[in-house]
Parts: sequence; C-alpha cells; structure tokens
Amino acid sequence: MPDPIITLTTDFGEDSPYVASMKGVILGINPAARLVDLSHQLPPQNLTHAAFFLATTVPCFSTEVLHVVVVDPGVGTERALLYVEVEGHHLLAPDNGCWTLLARQGSRPPRVLKLVEPRYWRQLVSATFHGRDILAPVAGHLSLGLDPQSLGPVASEWVQLEFPVPALEPDRLAGEVIFVDHYGNLITNIPGDAFHALAAGPVRVAVGSQEVARRVRTYGEAEPGTFVALISSAGMLEIAVVQGNAARLMCARPGTPVVAERREM
Amino acid sequence: MPDPIITLTTDFGEDSPYVASMKGVILGINPAARLVDLSHQLPPQNLTHAAFFLATTVPCFSTEVLHVVVVDPGVGTERALLYVEVEGHHLLAPDNGCWTLLARQGSRPPRVLKLVEPRYWRQLVSATFHGRDILAPVAGHLSLGLDPQSLGPVASEWVQLEFPVPALEPDRLAGEVIFVDHYGNLITNIPGDAFHALAAGPVRVAVGSQEVARRVRTYGEAEPGTFVALISSAGMLEIAVVQGNAARLMCARPGTPVVAERREM
Amino acid sequence: MPDPIITLTTDFGEDSPYVASMKGVILGINPAARLVDLSHQLPPQNLTHAAFFLATTVPCFSTEVLHVVVVDPGVGTERALLYVEVEGHHLLAPDNGCWTLLARQGSRPPRVLKLVEPRYWRQLVSATFHGRDILAPVAGHLSLGLDPQSLGPVASEWVQLEFPVPALEPDRLAGEVIFVDHYGNLITNIPGDAFHALAAGPVRVAVGSQEVARRVRTYGEAEPGTFVALISSAGMLEIAVVQGNAARLMCARPGTPVVAERREM
Repeated sequence: MPDPIITLTTDFGEDSPYVASMKGVILGINPAARLVDLSHQLPPQNLTHAAFFLATTVPCFSTEVLHVVVVDPGVGTERALLYVEVEGHHLLAPDNGCWTLLARQGSRPPRVLKLVEPRYWRQLVSATFHGRDILAPVAGHLSLGLDPQSLGPVASEWVQLEFPVPALEPDRLAGEVIFVDHYGNLITNIPGDAFHALAAGPVRVAVGSQEVARRVRTYGEAEPGTFVALISSAGMLEIAVVQGNAARLMCARPGTPVVAERREM
Repeated sequence: MPDPIITLTTDFGEDSPYVASMKGVILGINPAARLVDLSHQLPPQNLTHAAFFLATTVPCFSTEVLHVVVVDPGVGTERALLYVEVEGHHLLAPDNGCWTLLARQGSRPPRVLKLVEPRYWRQLVSATFHGRDILAPVAGHLSLGLDPQSLGPVASEWVQLEFPVPALEPDRLAGEVIFVDHYGNLITNIPGDAFHALAAGPVRVAVGSQEVARRVRTYGEAEPGTFVALISSAGMLEIAVVQGNAARLMCARPGTPVVAERREM
Repeated sequence: MPDPIITLTTDFGEDSPYVASMKGVILGINPAARLVDLSHQLPPQNLTHAAFFLATTVPCFSTEVLHVVVVDPGVGTERALLYVEVEGHHLLAPDNGCWTLLARQGSRPPRVLKLVEPRYWRQLVSATFHGRDILAPVAGHLSLGLDPQSLGPVASEWVQLEFPVPALEPDRLAGEVIFVDHYGNLITNIPGDAFHALAAGPVRVAVGSQEVARRVRTYGEAEPGTFVALISSAGMLEIAVVQGNAARLMCARPGTPVVAERREM
C-alpha cells in the first residue's frame, strides 16, 4: 500500500514560514507521509472562497486522502477544530463552515468530531497558530492509523456558511459571480444544467449591465476579445473573454450579479 | 525501484483549484505516483515562455520522469493532445508547440503520439479543462506502466512554434530578450558561445538604446547598481544589474532588442 | 525506513525555471528522494529574512531531514558553500550567514564543512547557479548516504549576520519589525517573555508614532479594525489589526521601530 497522502490548503501565502512549519510537524510525526500542496494562496480569511475551492477540488481525490485546511479567521477564539467525513472524504479544519458547500453535493450526512484530546497536539499550543500546533500533529497521527474516535466526541452541530442562492426560473436565471480564476474567468453560482436548458432557445446573458456577446462550448470558438458564456469545468455558468481577462474588462468580482434570460425572437 | 515521478507545469496560478484537481485525478489512478511541481506560474497562455521554460528545465531531469504540461490557449478546439518522447524525455502536452524548443536541442527526431483513446480519460470530458480530464488520467495510467502505444496513433505532424532567431555575424550579434527571471535579469536568445568569442576583444553591448557597462563572469564582480553582461546558467547572453532589477531599470521585457558588437579600439 | 526528505528554500520565485532545475538534478541523483518545498518566495537576496525564516521553520522538522537553502547574492564570488549541522539539523547553504540566527537558538556549537570536492558536483559548474550545479547534486549524494566528511574540510569561521538587537530594560522594550507575514501582521524582535513580564501592569505599545490600542491573547478577542499587541506563534511580540493588514494601515515594514513601555497609572 502506498504511503498515506496528506493535502494542505491554506491562506498562508507562498512566502510564509507557516506552511513550512506545518510540513515539519507532520513529517516529524509520520516521516512516511506524502504531502501534497493544494494551494497556499487562498484569499486571506475568505471562507466563501475556501468553500468553493474545497467543493471543486476534494471530489477529484480518492477517499484515502486526508485534507488539512487552514483558513482560520477565528483562531484562538472559542471556535472548535473538527475532523470531518463527508461523502467518504476526510478533512481536518476549523469549525467555520469552509467544508459545508462540499457536504451539500452529497446525500449522506457528514460525520463530525470535535478535536479535544490534547494528547495528539503539540505540547505547547500557541493562541494564533492551531494549524501547526493542533491540526498538523493530528494529521500526522491519523496518517499513522489512529482511530479518529480517539480525537474527541461526535459533534451534532457545526457552522454552516450562507452561500448566495441563485433564483432559477424557467425563463430567467439570476445569480452572481462566486469565483474569479487566474485568467480572469468568472465562475457563477448558476448551474450549467439550468443554463443549458434555457439556452436551447435565444438567450441574453449579462454581467451587471454588460451584455455577453456569444454562447460557446469552449474559448477557442470565438474571436479573441469576444465576451462568451459557457459551462465551466466545474459545471457552472462561466463568463470569459477569449484570450482576455473578463474580470478586469468587466470590472467584475465575486458578488457581481449575472443574469441569463430568454430573449424574444 | 522508487515510485514513478510525474511533474506538473501549468499557467493555472498558485491560487487555482485547477492544479489541485489534476493532482487528485492523478493520485486517484495511481496513489503511488510522486508529484513534483515545476511551476504553476507560467505567464497565462504564453507559449514562447512555456517553450523556454521546458527547454531549460526538462534536460535537468532523468528520462524516467513523466512531464505533464498544461499551457493550453486552444483548449476545447480541434488542437490535439500529445504524448511526446524527445531526447529520451517523456511529456504530455497540448499540440501547440510548447515542447519544440526542447526538441531542437537534440539530434534525434521526437516520437509523437496523438491521444485519441478515451478509455484512459475521465468519463465526462469538459470542454475547457483537458488537463484534468485527459492529461491527468493519462499520466496516471502511464505511471502504472501503460504502453504509450495504447494511447493513440503516431503523429507525423505537429505545431512548431516560431522563435525569434538571432542574427549572428562575426562582428555583431543581434537578438532579443526572451525571458525575464524573478530578479529582473534579462535572458537573451544570443548563445553564450558566440558572445564569448566576440568578447575576446573590446565589445559594446546594448539593450535597446541603453549601454551595458561591464562584462563579468558573475554578478558579484561589479559594484551594486552596475549594468553587466554575462553568460547565463542556461548558456545564453544575460544582462543584469548587480543587486538590482534590470528589467525594471531598463524598461526591458521579452522582445526588447539586444545587440553585442565589436568596438573600435 | 521512509525515503529521505530534502527541503528546498529559495528566493527564486514560483515562476522560475531555477526551482525546477534543482529538483531535476536532485532526483536525477537520487530518484527516491522526497522533495518538500518550504518556500521559493523569500524576498530576493534578503539574508535577514532568510535567517528569520529558517530560525522559525527548521526547528519544526525532525533532524533526519536535509535542508537546501539558496538565497545567494554572492553567487560566483569567493564566498564558500557550506554543509552545516546545527542542533542536529542539516543544511546546505551559501556562507552568507543565513543559518546563524537558527544557530543562536541552541547551545551546542555548529559543525561546519566547506564544499570543495567537485566529485559530487555537476560536471559543468556555471558562474551564476551554484544551487543547481553544486548544492543540488551534493544534496542528492548526501540523501544516498554519503558521509558529509567527503564533501570538504571543517571550517572554523563563517559569515555571521548582524541582527538588530532589541534594548530590553525593565520598564521599556525597544525593538523593531523584523518580518511582515502574508496577512500584514508585524513580527518584532522583542521576545514574548519580556513583553509578558512588562505587560503584567499597564503598558503602552507603539509602532513608530502610532499607538496600539489593545493587548490580546489572540486576534479574535477584539473588534475588527482594532490594533492589537500579542505574542506571535514564534514567541515574539507581534502587532496586528483584527481582520486587517497592520503593515499597510501602519505603513510599517522590517526596520520600523516598536516600543513597549510601562505606563503611569
């Protein structure tokens, strides 16, 4: 059996000593653990973004993997730290809702434990870096085969993030940008299926007050500079500019309204 | 034998869920694969840069390694996806010429296959993310020992990038900046050998209209702030500012002309 | 026994072919080596920052790990390259003082060897990239079990960086910012212990001429926007803004003076 895989997702930044510190602690407990960086560039303390990131990426992994997530604006306060099993995936994360969008994709209820057993933590726990002092050592111990039950009691409640809910009517889909990728493409919260059904006929798509010129299957179908609507690789309505940066050109960002509606012929 | 190594080179950005998704897919198929990040910060959709990056880095690796490259402005269009063997190195990449500078360093013709066998892809292939849906699973299967021949037919043609060709005369070398590194050093397309021969006598070096003060072997030989010409670690003429940023100070970037010529004594 | 771990810490930037080149060279010599990125975003050629980074992160690792550090403004000059054992940790680094803050945390004298044995280097050593041509291959050979003694003679002298020393008096602690993290938090060179003792009574903390409103144990204890003083996860006095960026709001950076003093009641 290959050595256990532990992924790391944080908002620490690539320049940070905090990522390296966590890696050191995990490998100190389980030198055979295989660390995989997902991202350390999540926008600082942005839980909605973290939720979207995890909902997009975790399902691509097999369920043997352990995911450690540190986006933690509430570090050192009363907020709990959790071990979560959701649709077979395993995560360690602060109780701030960052994994709840992932959970909504499934039908089974998650299994959630509160980390309260200091035996699996570092001896000195700082007030501001529970990633290094609690999550990293717990990840190390889990990867050695520790039964999660040893970590603490089952939790029956946890923080759930509110996500903007799109208004989906037969003739009109109204949502918003929830994520801007590295190319400036705008990923919305409007499901691709709903858009696909609506777009069987003529359709008008707008980002704020700006109209999107064309509906395409992929970027390469239109001329450079064209504003296009398509279904993203995560299955959502996406707005892009061919070989350009839609976020910049449309002054759009998370929260900018996006509407697709049936057009009179 | 150690577990197989797969490198990843993309223009996705460190903040992107796309890198993480590809890692999940590869490890889902071969949990023993060892992933090595080369860079995820290639300039978006810049094929010339990608070509330079691969020509510089791939030769440092042994030939057992598999390199997955996703700089893919043509995703979802007719452009093919390729398996390439070049000077013993193995790559998976879109057919956009990103590996052709690497191929020019060698003498043997490359072996190129077109990926057409969907059995080794993800079940649902999106129109905009072939890195996750085709290249990643194919990399996973190859790392398990799949014979590349199973991937598809031999290709006899592929896209070749045009690279700016320097004009190399006995008394004058005229080229351009092809790459700016993180320190602002300017790497040109003028071979170090040619410069070395010319610079046996007095020589004048200019970036655009700005003269370079000194020829050195390494940065530390001149005072801070001096503009220097030297031979880069990749064997090309390089222009730098000692303890400074040449790109910024000279307003230079890829494409800026660079000339080295014999000077009257 | 798990495969050997080699960490990489550089100022090359994530976009650089230099990181990838070093990885290729190490894995070419020892295909079983397990590479762990600490950071490639150290501020270019900033030795003080590198020293702080290493002093914070290396102690989190177990002593089996080999750390390769390339922040090397003097590359190609007479400066030596070193193999260092400090408090049981193993490093390869240029002789520029980047590891000396780490050494000060311990009581045992470091063991230092000069790398002079070209048998363990690449055949062609460039003048500007000793990370790839000397440190990477030496790391590969060490990870295969090479006795460090083969690398070169013991050194009795090495470069020591000067670090700003805080003035610690019973009623007044005067230091400076030595590190700004990704969130804009200001880490100072004033030991947390000293601050803790002083802050038993009423205390005034100032960054430059700006007063810090509150003393807290962790960020979450004060309202968003409050300037707070706390003890950092590395045990130093830290200045932060709750859910904000202290560096930006206070125009502070490494070198900005920080004072904590007893206040009249």
